[in-house]
Amino acid sequence: MNTIVEQQKETAQVITPSELLKHWQGHRSLTRRVIEAFPEEAFFNHSIGGMRTFAQLTMELLGIAGPGIQEIATGNTSDLKEHFDHDNSKAKILELWDRATEEINANWSQITIEKFQETIKIFGQYEGTVMSSIFYFIDNEIHHRGQGYVYLRSLGIEPPAFWER
Amino acid sequence: MNTIVEQQKETAQVITPSELLKHWQGHRSLTRRVIEAFPEEAFFNHSIGGMRTFAQLTMELLGIAGPGIQEIATGNTSDLKEHFDHDNSKAKILELWDRATEEINANWSQITIEKFQETIKIFGQYEGTVMSSIFYFIDNEIHHRGQGYVYLRSLGIEPPAFWER
Repeated sequence: MNTIVEQQKETAQVITPSELLKHWQGHRSLTRRVIEAFPEEAFFNHSIGGMRTFAQLTMELLGIAGPGIQEIATGNTSDLKEHFDHDNSKAKILELWDRATEEINANWSQITIEKFQETIKIFGQYEGTVMSSIFYFIDNEIHHRGQGYVYLRSLGIEPPAFWER
Repeated sequence: MNTIVEQQKETAQVITPSELLKHWQGHRSLTRRVIEAFPEEAFFNHSIGGMRTFAQLTMELLGIAGPGIQEIATGNTSDLKEHFDHDNSKAKILELWDRATEEINANWSQITIEKFQETIKIFGQYEGTVMSSIFYFIDNEIHHRGQGYVYLRSLGIEPPAFWER
């Protein structure tokens, strides 16, 4: 029996599951550096036009990424969580970020290629394919991180280069 | 001989070429609505923290999307163009946007699934796979559009919902 990796090599693919994971973790690595670039206070307090702080946006991302992939891998639904104990400490947020990185990697290996086109109701609420859900996770992260770039620029801080992953 | 569409149906895929096109055009439709949401003057003049205006960011996207896919489909390289005649008119920009939508659709049908994993040097400068280039086009659009959301919020304007495509 061929392994999943061998099967992928045999068939033309737009993007393989392992390439998509690498692509996303590259984005997540950039987002981590954007979090690091914020002064601690501004991370928890700065905002523009009544928007959420970058800490709040980051917690949304934390609530989606690890738990979302766990749900896809295991089929166990949980509610969307958007708040985490952080004691106004970036280090705690970064710790949660790194834990999510490991959880995503571990659960990803349980997702077969056939699963990407299956229909799910992620967080018990949002119906779509596994593929469209994962793309939403990634796109939503890029979207909010782009907002973080404006916050940093408005603070006179140069954000990390977008193309470096 | 099977058509490309039939072959795709037979083989498990993370995302098919036609799904990826639909995904991107959904994003491009949202970006179009973000352009529309800007007051004409603010579109060409408003910025935060020394960043480019949303008109300038939009021209970057126009320079990438249509020409980038044309290059992938035809193999003809051209330089990256980031300025277009617009006479400070959003209508002209939207006209270019709609023309790009048609060009992308027309050229996309020429890209076989085998091509996505081939290596190219897009705009004669950026080496990567066709897949990674197209993902860069999409991600870069989401990134800059997210910045446009902050510009709109800072102007007291509610942007279109991110999840509506």
